[in-house]
Amino acid sequence: GSSAAKRVCKELSYTARAELPHVHPLAARLLRIMEEKTTNLCVSADVTNSEELLHLANCLGPKICILKTHVDILQDFTPSVASKLRELADKHRFLIFEDRKFADIGNTVKHQYEGGLYQISSWAHLINAHAVPGPGVVKGLGAVGKPLGRGCLLIAEMSSQGSLATGSYTQAVWKMAEDHSDFVFGFICGSKISDKPEFVHMTPGVQMQSGGDDLGQQYSSPYSVIYCKGSDVIIVGRGILSSSDRVAAAEEYRCAGWEAYMKRLSESNQ
Amino acid sequence: GSSAAKRVCKELSYTARAELPHVHPLAARLLRIMEEKTTNLCVSADVTNSEELLHLANCLGPKICILKTHVDILQDFTPSVASKLRELADKHRFLIFEDRKFADIGNTVKHQYEGGLYQISSWAHLINAHAVPGPGVVKGLGAVGKPLGRGCLLIAEMSSQGSLATGSYTQAVWKMAEDHSDFVFGFICGSKISDKPEFVHMTPGVQMQSGGDDLGQQYSSPYSVIYCKGSDVIIVGRGILSSSDRVAAAEEYRCAGWEAYMKRLSESNQ
Repeated sequence: GSSAAKRVCKELSYTARAELPHVHPLAARLLRIMEEKTTNLCVSADVTNSEELLHLANCLGPKICILKTHVDILQDFTPSVASKLRELADKHRFLIFEDRKFADIGNTVKHQYEGGLYQISSWAHLINAHAVPGPGVVKGLGAVGKPLGRGCLLIAEMSSQGSLATGSYTQAVWKMAEDHSDFVFGFICGSKISDKPEFVHMTPGVQMQSGGDDLGQQYSSPYSVIYCKGSDVIIVGRGILSSSDRVAAAEEYRCAGWEAYMKRLSESNQ
Repeated sequence: GSSAAKRVCKELSYTARAELPHVHPLAARLLRIMEEKTTNLCVSADVTNSEELLHLANCLGPKICILKTHVDILQDFTPSVASKLRELADKHRFLIFEDRKFADIGNTVKHQYEGGLYQISSWAHLINAHAVPGPGVVKGLGAVGKPLGRGCLLIAEMSSQGSLATGSYTQAVWKMAEDHSDFVFGFICGSKISDKPEFVHMTPGVQMQSGGDDLGQQYSSPYSVIYCKGSDVIIVGRGILSSSDRVAAAEEYRCAGWEAYMKRLSESNQ
């Protein structure tokens, strides 16, 4: 099939990719964490209470490679929440990804990234951006993030119904990432869009059950995302958060994601 | 010329448009403010200090129809800043436009709009959104904003170099606005993109001098935006903020924008 055709080249393990000469240091760190902890699970911690966020980070920390936050939905954020999150990230070895979806001109995103009450650049290892403003958005974010060793993901595709991030838009995002690979090290996408093994692909909207919500969200399974679509990281929100046993649910997703990766790797290397 | 050709239909005044049967109540309110105060100037209050923001709102209030904020770049925001801003908006009769550029799936933007430290929906008359996530972004925002009488602008075009909001993307934004005109009442754009007089067009990146910044911003003049491009509102940031006399600069932009509108109106009605 077409997925087999794409795998004529030998598939590299996360570790092998971490050792490529041109890999972004943060991508290397992430890929090593993934291999060491045998997880390609990113949890989307969409909670509105800081205590719950920290509790989640501590409980799920051992299962995940990335904790994805929406700091701007927390009703009680203080700088100490960010410090505690960083301590938990060190303790459990995961990266913090603030899913801010920056989408303004360069001069504005610079301030939004560095300043305000959230001071995102001071604590989030990675952030993401929409490419719609043009390359200025990456340049503005990079001016703040590069000196701090941060990294950025560009949103190449979205999991929501009727998204305009398709076709030539996605191609333009890919090009923008290629042109700014000293800061951009990967994509938010539905499937692998770049053959460069230095880029990390992360896919949101992952759930064991297919379906969606009443606001256009559409779900894919870990197997489909990692094995069929060739993405690297599954981003799971409500599939874990709405479970009565979140740790057990996270373990289930971690296993499913990891097995799909192992299968992809072993079949390509036969 | 082509701009004359577009004006075969008689151009309606802001007031006449405010009285159209299907106009959004907030658009009507804005259009009436514009006519009463003879201003189509929106100031982009991109400052990082709340005291300065409030001072700006008070000094420039009489000159503007809209104050555009980036609440997330204020280093010292508190809910009382929002209350004071609303008092100044009432005192000087302008609307508050939080330029948040929401750009996530419906379920997430709902929380971002209503919650967090900023509680944007509680004080901003209008907000804007990127269409890239698909219609779910408008549905999610509308679920919060419609019961409060708020309105939304969709970003159809951007003033930054290399923006992907062009061609079929812009067309899709236009369609999304048409489909959700109970909440979306206008566009952020470079030029008029809809012939429906109920829609309000607002154009950023306006400065008397042409040019740009080193992060891809590109400037147009008030005359070009209002007279040639048929937009309704000029959004001016650094052209006013970096002036040593901000009130005088605002007055200069107000005059230039209003004269361009009067010229457009009188020529179309000859």
